[in-house]
Amino acid sequence: MKKIINKPEDYTKDFVEGLIKAHSDKYQLLDDDFRMLIRKENPKTDKVGIVTAGGSGHLPLFLGYVGDKMLDGCAIGNVFASPSSSKMEKLIRECDYGKGVLCLYGNYGGDNMNFDMATEMTDFDDIKTLKIAVKDDIASAPIDKKDQRRGVAGIVYAYKIAGAAADKGYDLDKVSMITKEALENIRTIGVALSPCVVPEAGKATFEIKDDEIEIGMGIHGEAGIEVKKMMTADKLAEQLTDKLLEEIELKENDELSVMINGLGATPLDEMYIVYNRLYDLLKDKKVNIIQPHIGNFATSMEMAGLSITFFKLNDELKQLLTEVSSTPFYTNFNK
Amino acid sequence: MKKIINKPEDYTKDFVEGLIKAHSDKYQLLDDDFRMLIRKENPKTDKVGIVTAGGSGHLPLFLGYVGDKMLDGCAIGNVFASPSSSKMEKLIRECDYGKGVLCLYGNYGGDNMNFDMATEMTDFDDIKTLKIAVKDDIASAPIDKKDQRRGVAGIVYAYKIAGAAADKGYDLDKVSMITKEALENIRTIGVALSPCVVPEAGKATFEIKDDEIEIGMGIHGEAGIEVKKMMTADKLAEQLTDKLLEEIELKENDELSVMINGLGATPLDEMYIVYNRLYDLLKDKKVNIIQPHIGNFATSMEMAGLSITFFKLNDELKQLLTEVSSTPFYTNFNK
Repeated sequence: MKKIINKPEDYTKDFVEGLIKAHSDKYQLLDDDFRMLIRKENPKTDKVGIVTAGGSGHLPLFLGYVGDKMLDGCAIGNVFASPSSSKMEKLIRECDYGKGVLCLYGNYGGDNMNFDMATEMTDFDDIKTLKIAVKDDIASAPIDKKDQRRGVAGIVYAYKIAGAAADKGYDLDKVSMITKEALENIRTIGVALSPCVVPEAGKATFEIKDDEIEIGMGIHGEAGIEVKKMMTADKLAEQLTDKLLEEIELKENDELSVMINGLGATPLDEMYIVYNRLYDLLKDKKVNIIQPHIGNFATSMEMAGLSITFFKLNDELKQLLTEVSSTPFYTNFNK
Repeated sequence: MKKIINKPEDYTKDFVEGLIKAHSDKYQLLDDDFRMLIRKENPKTDKVGIVTAGGSGHLPLFLGYVGDKMLDGCAIGNVFASPSSSKMEKLIRECDYGKGVLCLYGNYGGDNMNFDMATEMTDFDDIKTLKIAVKDDIASAPIDKKDQRRGVAGIVYAYKIAGAAADKGYDLDKVSMITKEALENIRTIGVALSPCVVPEAGKATFEIKDDEIEIGMGIHGEAGIEVKKMMTADKLAEQLTDKLLEEIELKENDELSVMINGLGATPLDEMYIVYNRLYDLLKDKKVNIIQPHIGNFATSMEMAGLSITFFKLNDELKQLLTEVSSTPFYTNFNK
């Protein structure tokens, strides 16, 4: 196993400690616990708190989106494992500034269950919470079972919208409503070329043949919808776009943000090669692309591959998307 | 070969076109030629122009540093190949706003030769130019032959300093002098874990055994200084730091910026695990770290590994480093 790590069991602790040391002006741990990260300058203003949680192994997801006009706090588990409900509960209490807390996370069993338990506990103290489980991965279940779908890179757009809406001082119901509206218009599909290595397991999570790729593979190596022979970047862009267009209807002059998200080991060059074709496909439809996001936003450590996310905008969502947000790992300041 | 590309010979054209489509508000091609990229809003102000050039395969290097308070233009060759002198010449002419042009590039044979030829041509028209070849890679030649060293990730710091100095309206001599002073205080060393694949070759550039790493390997797969057994992240941080400290002398209260640069396929988590140890080593020396840069700044496509760069600061260099610069691929706005 060729990973630049120390003891596999210290993986999460080691990288979170490094992250706090690098960004001590922006981040701090809650209760000195590396599993709970909050903003250094706690807003404590009249705003809704936005929190998330999830397993490690996806940087910049999840911790990296804690920051100005994005998240207020994040609980982090071991690689691909949910943090405990007690960490989530503490985080919710900390990030309630009086207007309640939106819990925004990927639709995975552990995260769902633990946020349910956490909010049951905070309910006792009349902390108002709402929960949204992100389900943007169209490959993870058919449309008639879309409530079972997993959350992937589209969650970054959801953080962006929720954070910007909360910053405007909207109440919890409105922040939640806008975020749900955004998610109705967000869909993702991915493709994997090579596996990742979970530190404690020490070996590849799955196998893909040298000349094959897996369409729809999940960010933890969950099985995809089809294995295909390796194809050109243009063909891949076309096939993934076709699948997204089945669920995101686009007409002339529609505005769309697109994310091309690297899964970890895919060169930025390849993401731009895919974007080159994607842009032409959308231009043919006379769709206007707003603030494309191209880079590593939600990874699986050293997995090679990428995902494409479509986010169809209306005026309000566009305004919230383009509002400048800033964390040590994300900003649209220069886009 | 599992790369998300079209025809290997179209690699550079395809990704540059994608890049222009994604960032058309910031970038434009010169003469509609994908080998020459300049800022959309040409400064045309009373400032020194800063240009660079180099081969493809290193994104965000080189094109990605064209932007506000960084580079004014970049000529780009095929993967790992220098662009021609005629492209460099056109670029220099375009980026001369009346105060001359600084050519700032890595110390490689083709780039040196072509910038020499390009500036000979622009000399005829009395365009004032100065050239600086960056030589920050301490593993590429011993200290008594440091003029033969190659340029690697430290060039990003050089762009940052030169761009910020030019933006202050300093004349060409002063911009060059400050950039050279910065480079006197910048040193890099890298380690590779796995090779990259040059598209036109279609196979790995070199081999490293499953349990080995190569200290000092270049970003094109140039041989390093020693092959070692895989070691922990802490040990690796210690050994690379020891080598850097042989050339960058540090004492109590010195200010240092450090860059941990991923070579392409290395997870961000691992870079932070290395930083976690590096921070402690420097804290033990009572050195203050200013604006650490952690991420992919100068890559070799899908090569796994990382480099560490030390940049020792004085008051002027610190001021220029922390000045907010912005390109679609880089900003220190949120650091």
